[in-house]
Amino acid sequence: MAGQRVRPPRGFRDFTPEMMILRKELLSKLERVFQLYGYDPIDTPALEYWETLAGKYGEEAEGRLIWRFRDPWSGREYALRYDLTVPLARFIANHQDIPLPFRRYHIGPVWRHEEPQRGRYREFYQCDADIVGSPYPEADAEIVNLAVDSIKALGFEAGFQVRVNDRRLLRGVYEVELGLENPLPVYRAVDKLDKIGIEGVRSELEKLGLASTTISRILDLLEVRMPIGEAVAELRGRYGGKNTHIDEALNHLEGMASLLHGDADIILDMSLVRGLDYYTGPILEVVLERPRIGSVAGGGRYDGLIGIFLGKQIPATGVSIGIERIIDAGIELGIYSLEKKTLTQVQVIVLDGDSFDYAWRVASMLREHGIRTRIDVSRASPKSQRKKARRLQVPLLAFIGSEEKARGEVTFYKPSTGERIRSKLEDAPSTALKLL
Amino acid sequence: MAGQRVRPPRGFRDFTPEMMILRKELLSKLERVFQLYGYDPIDTPALEYWETLAGKYGEEAEGRLIWRFRDPWSGREYALRYDLTVPLARFIANHQDIPLPFRRYHIGPVWRHEEPQRGRYREFYQCDADIVGSPYPEADAEIVNLAVDSIKALGFEAGFQVRVNDRRLLRGVYEVELGLENPLPVYRAVDKLDKIGIEGVRSELEKLGLASTTISRILDLLEVRMPIGEAVAELRGRYGGKNTHIDEALNHLEGMASLLHGDADIILDMSLVRGLDYYTGPILEVVLERPRIGSVAGGGRYDGLIGIFLGKQIPATGVSIGIERIIDAGIELGIYSLEKKTLTQVQVIVLDGDSFDYAWRVASMLREHGIRTRIDVSRASPKSQRKKARRLQVPLLAFIGSEEKARGEVTFYKPSTGERIRSKLEDAPSTALKLL
Repeated sequence: MAGQRVRPPRGFRDFTPEMMILRKELLSKLERVFQLYGYDPIDTPALEYWETLAGKYGEEAEGRLIWRFRDPWSGREYALRYDLTVPLARFIANHQDIPLPFRRYHIGPVWRHEEPQRGRYREFYQCDADIVGSPYPEADAEIVNLAVDSIKALGFEAGFQVRVNDRRLLRGVYEVELGLENPLPVYRAVDKLDKIGIEGVRSELEKLGLASTTISRILDLLEVRMPIGEAVAELRGRYGGKNTHIDEALNHLEGMASLLHGDADIILDMSLVRGLDYYTGPILEVVLERPRIGSVAGGGRYDGLIGIFLGKQIPATGVSIGIERIIDAGIELGIYSLEKKTLTQVQVIVLDGDSFDYAWRVASMLREHGIRTRIDVSRASPKSQRKKARRLQVPLLAFIGSEEKARGEVTFYKPSTGERIRSKLEDAPSTALKLL
Repeated sequence: MAGQRVRPPRGFRDFTPEMMILRKELLSKLERVFQLYGYDPIDTPALEYWETLAGKYGEEAEGRLIWRFRDPWSGREYALRYDLTVPLARFIANHQDIPLPFRRYHIGPVWRHEEPQRGRYREFYQCDADIVGSPYPEADAEIVNLAVDSIKALGFEAGFQVRVNDRRLLRGVYEVELGLENPLPVYRAVDKLDKIGIEGVRSELEKLGLASTTISRILDLLEVRMPIGEAVAELRGRYGGKNTHIDEALNHLEGMASLLHGDADIILDMSLVRGLDYYTGPILEVVLERPRIGSVAGGGRYDGLIGIFLGKQIPATGVSIGIERIIDAGIELGIYSLEKKTLTQVQVIVLDGDSFDYAWRVASMLREHGIRTRIDVSRASPKSQRKKARRLQVPLLAFIGSEEKARGEVTFYKPSTGERIRSKLEDAPSTALKLL
């Protein structure tokens, strides 16, 4: 019997218990933050009709990164969801009875037809929190604070920076003031600031054939990386009153500034662009000081997206916490460990077959008291049972042999301390709980 | 701006917060039972290569029900996972370092190209618990007990029946003893017993052109619907020693019988067949007394499946809890309600814009004490804020106006009791916790 291929498809992953135990713990911490801010869970399908996703993200996503296929039975074209934001926009249009503003969170997998590489997968979780129905800076400020609290709850107490910008500011400065007719290559260049440095950006801009005065003005702008209040004052000095895009953005950012968590490192960063087409106002990104793995959260305001589905505009803003990168980073930094290999608290070691029925009763009894309990069902030798329990680091063993059965007792053994306690059957749950 | 289609694809569903709050609560109860029995979580990709799923389930699934498509970039054929069992088999072969027996649970969506109808979806959750590595009846008994505890934990204290059969018994009796060369149509007929009654089955068997003595013997067999111990004695009388399939099955079932929960309604049912090809030993199904919606859990032993991937046989057995049907049934029976529309505990009502900064501080403070708190970010009138809080039945309101701000206080109001308490800012969290 020749074995079939056993690896998951390229770019996809299996998660073993130790990885799942960590993932579930982190997702539950994140979920708690979302809930603390008053966000409620929703879910949407993995599959959408292709036309639901088409025309929302921009060229790269739609030409190359979306998993799409034609259903041979119906002939309809489907796509796996590429993010949780466009599905949210469709959801809002589909549930017009939900009172606004609507705060929702959504944790689940999305799929991208990426070329797989370290830290980049074809299936990965997104953890999104969004407010639908408020055009005001306080909504964006809440999203930034929620992002800060999320990253902190995941164990990165400091060592991260939140970068904020505004699409209207980009537009008002680069497109209107600097007169760039085709700003996209410029955005791509400045977006690389962190990777290639200021001289790298200069040389990219030179390659684009821009006038040297324009390049100077752009590089000057990139120096605006400071707390939002200061940055707004600085930019007002340079560009205040020049055009409505800029003024709207600066007023909005100013409205956010006073509401942001004072203890976090939050700056306005004119090099921040973000790739998706649907953003219309403030955008944000969280980066870790180390490791340098790109942003671990990103989001922004998208006031036009829901209108595409609904036929009338509803403003919205939100953030997506990049849990996959955070997990990779946390493991690399030693903040997270994969040491916990099982959730099981007690392993019942069956010393001989004749005591099995009694051991079975003991296991049931422990479970009835909320103790996560395993019992051998493979008729393994006591030695092999113990060996396995040790490999999984089960915290407590319960030995059951003919003596325990005859006396109506249980012998507990706690490997980490060497404690060995013999307990009456009826006291077994309380003894186990004390030892755990 | 013409609105685009806003409904999810046909057969797929959006889940609103009230539905998600219920689903999450139920899944968490189920997960708790799985963990109590010592099962650990894993996950596998939504997509598998088509060849991973091919040849495992049987004709209907593979010809019609699996979502499969060819990736236009790589030309490879993919499929959305059809269940969680075949992915588990591949997973085991991919992780040969995991010590056996391995108990895992897996909760997640699967996809089937069904014709959508009431209670039948194209995307639905499966909740599976399996033991890999034990060929013994105690493993199957644990699976049955876990299924019983799961259904109970989901709120169906009684009012359900567990039906058990064994594929070897079916084979030994129908194929060997009754000499049916093409038993599949007979299995399909007896499987309908609950729907069409004994006379219905008789007429189906007559249509198949079976001899009347054979039909009588089959209908006699269908009367074996009794506690497993009794059924084994009855069948031993009729078929004991006739062939090894039967004897193996009866010994195995007898080994399970004494380990099963004594307080549950568990029977051996010779009409139970189950549709999937991969079963090789005991099979089981849980049905509710009402509503009559088919089985709400199903599973069995599949000793050959892992071997297809691994090249060597590893026995396995498990159960899948049909959470979607259980939710539908629980709502229909009034066991579950969709009344909880938000997880939010406190809604901060901002009485005037000048107090907003103070209200913002109050909201932060409540969150720091673990209280799930929302604040208005839409500059709505106090009346409109209250109306929305009432619609969502937020349990506690915190009013903040100029008076509260000037005095450093918060006015709490609990709609369900009419209590109104004014608290000092520093006591606000403890006051809120008392009122909640």
